[in-house]
Amino acid sequence: MAASFKQTLPTDELRRRVLALAEPADQALKDTLTSHVPYIEQVSGYIIFSGGKRLRPVLYLLAAAAAGSQGQARQAAIFEYLHAATLLHDDVVDEAGLRRGRPAARTKYGNDAVILVGDFLFSKSYSLAAEVADHRFINALTDCTTIMAEGQVLELLFTGDYELAEADYRRVIQAKTAVLIAASCQMGAIFAGADDATIHALYTYGMELGMAFQMVDDALDYAGTEHEFGKPVGHDLAEGKITLPFIFARENCDPSQRGHLIDLAAAAPADPAAQAEAKEMVRQAGGVEHTMAQAKAHALAAQDALAALIPAQGPSEHLETLLALAPYVVERRS
Amino acid sequence: MAASFKQTLPTDELRRRVLALAEPADQALKDTLTSHVPYIEQVSGYIIFSGGKRLRPVLYLLAAAAAGSQGQARQAAIFEYLHAATLLHDDVVDEAGLRRGRPAARTKYGNDAVILVGDFLFSKSYSLAAEVADHRFINALTDCTTIMAEGQVLELLFTGDYELAEADYRRVIQAKTAVLIAASCQMGAIFAGADDATIHALYTYGMELGMAFQMVDDALDYAGTEHEFGKPVGHDLAEGKITLPFIFARENCDPSQRGHLIDLAAAAPADPAAQAEAKEMVRQAGGVEHTMAQAKAHALAAQDALAALIPAQGPSEHLETLLALAPYVVERRS
Repeated sequence: MAASFKQTLPTDELRRRVLALAEPADQALKDTLTSHVPYIEQVSGYIIFSGGKRLRPVLYLLAAAAAGSQGQARQAAIFEYLHAATLLHDDVVDEAGLRRGRPAARTKYGNDAVILVGDFLFSKSYSLAAEVADHRFINALTDCTTIMAEGQVLELLFTGDYELAEADYRRVIQAKTAVLIAASCQMGAIFAGADDATIHALYTYGMELGMAFQMVDDALDYAGTEHEFGKPVGHDLAEGKITLPFIFARENCDPSQRGHLIDLAAAAPADPAAQAEAKEMVRQAGGVEHTMAQAKAHALAAQDALAALIPAQGPSEHLETLLALAPYVVERRS
Repeated sequence: MAASFKQTLPTDELRRRVLALAEPADQALKDTLTSHVPYIEQVSGYIIFSGGKRLRPVLYLLAAAAAGSQGQARQAAIFEYLHAATLLHDDVVDEAGLRRGRPAARTKYGNDAVILVGDFLFSKSYSLAAEVADHRFINALTDCTTIMAEGQVLELLFTGDYELAEADYRRVIQAKTAVLIAASCQMGAIFAGADDATIHALYTYGMELGMAFQMVDDALDYAGTEHEFGKPVGHDLAEGKITLPFIFARENCDPSQRGHLIDLAAAAPADPAAQAEAKEMVRQAGGVEHTMAQAKAHALAAQDALAALIPAQGPSEHLETLLALAPYVVERRS
């Protein structure tokens, strides 16, 4: 039988705890998203206040609290700004039409404004990070953003590579998604003045959680419906992005079908029927289940990473919430 | 009679001194422009090693030396990376075809790669800045990049605004150009551990020099030839960018011609003949000379800013070089 999660919370209780932190995170965004150019506030606000889950700021605040901080929420905004900047630039690169169920910022404000406002948000992130005296804080951020940029270039280079190896897929999702989630947790611990072992444990937790998070996203792109997801599904194939469900199907389907699957994927960007057939083949080959199982393994590893931080009398409330987020990430449907 | 420059050097001597610093700056670029993704090194290298003048790294090193640093050149790379990142993103926004006399990176590698490699270079800049223990260093950088992003958005918003006021033009060029040159000088002084008065003097020097530099660029766009300049001239009007030569002509031409000049500018992006006629009207109205005179006033102010740093026995070699760069910036022809 598959391993099971160490800690869960009733969904309502988990939601209550997360919302209690999303509120100060939102306040930090409102307090710091200021510019001398009102138009920048407008474009930034369009993407930032469009109903994101505030996952990264909440993780930062949880990690900081778990590591003993009673501190303020101001720096939580860093992670939402970085995430938003990345989405803005990604949407230009991907020529995306929808984001979070409504027109992507670039379709409303134009690619030009979106590129430059992305740069502004990167800059805001570093400004907020530079306010923290502990030099490890800004260093963690610059390590993170350098890897993120590399990950996005890699993803671009691998677009249309239908023979993409699983190791390269993992390298991309680690760099483009997991590293920022890891940094959110790591920097929360640094802000709290934690020791190296605690910082490392929270970093590893975030990295594993981030891998799980992206794999679920990639599985849902084959399994979900547009209504659930807020953006088109099957979109990865339409963009020539090769993810784990496809890789698993390619490696595990009947060998006589392998070439056909690759041909369908190559045709998918221009041919919705080929895309639908490829998607169906990937499902039939068990690509979605395999990816979800891999996501679960990473979520379990996230919980394991926190083991050393749990005192004999059981986890604190904040550690308990971090632990409970791991199964939540795997079980979410959007 | 117009004010004259306090300090000049024979061109050969100035060139010798600048080249002596451009060399360690180039070495710093070669040492630090590394990535786990070779393609990033390739795209970055294409723009960075395409014969820029290294003005910003050289100013950083001169300011650091003038403020007493015997230090290493590593952080000089920051300012070339930021400049290159801005050029990469600008070229996407402007749909530029040429840069420094050869195809712009975006025409060779595509907009997507260029946006993401720009992000990588921003990140590299902050990484290098975060290595410096003095917190004023990274704070100066984040202040600078936030204003730069605002300036570029402002420039975008003002595109096609043929009634643009001179004050708004000045605001744009200060934010998009002068602030980075100011930060190069300021951060050199901070690196050297200078006192606040010295840091402020070098910051002001850089700001005034940067204003002069951009105004000369804007004048040359009306006066120069493509061969001298390495990029198309008359391009500002073709892009709907309103600069000081045009503003001066608009405000000082025969009032009966004002409407015609504005109509020509509005037609210029789609009509080379209108562009040529507008350019000629701007020249006839003295827009180029006026802009050059304004540039000279800023270059003189740059020299003045250093006055407090000049000891009774005369400027040190590095201060002398900084002083001599002011007239050079105004007299250059490309």
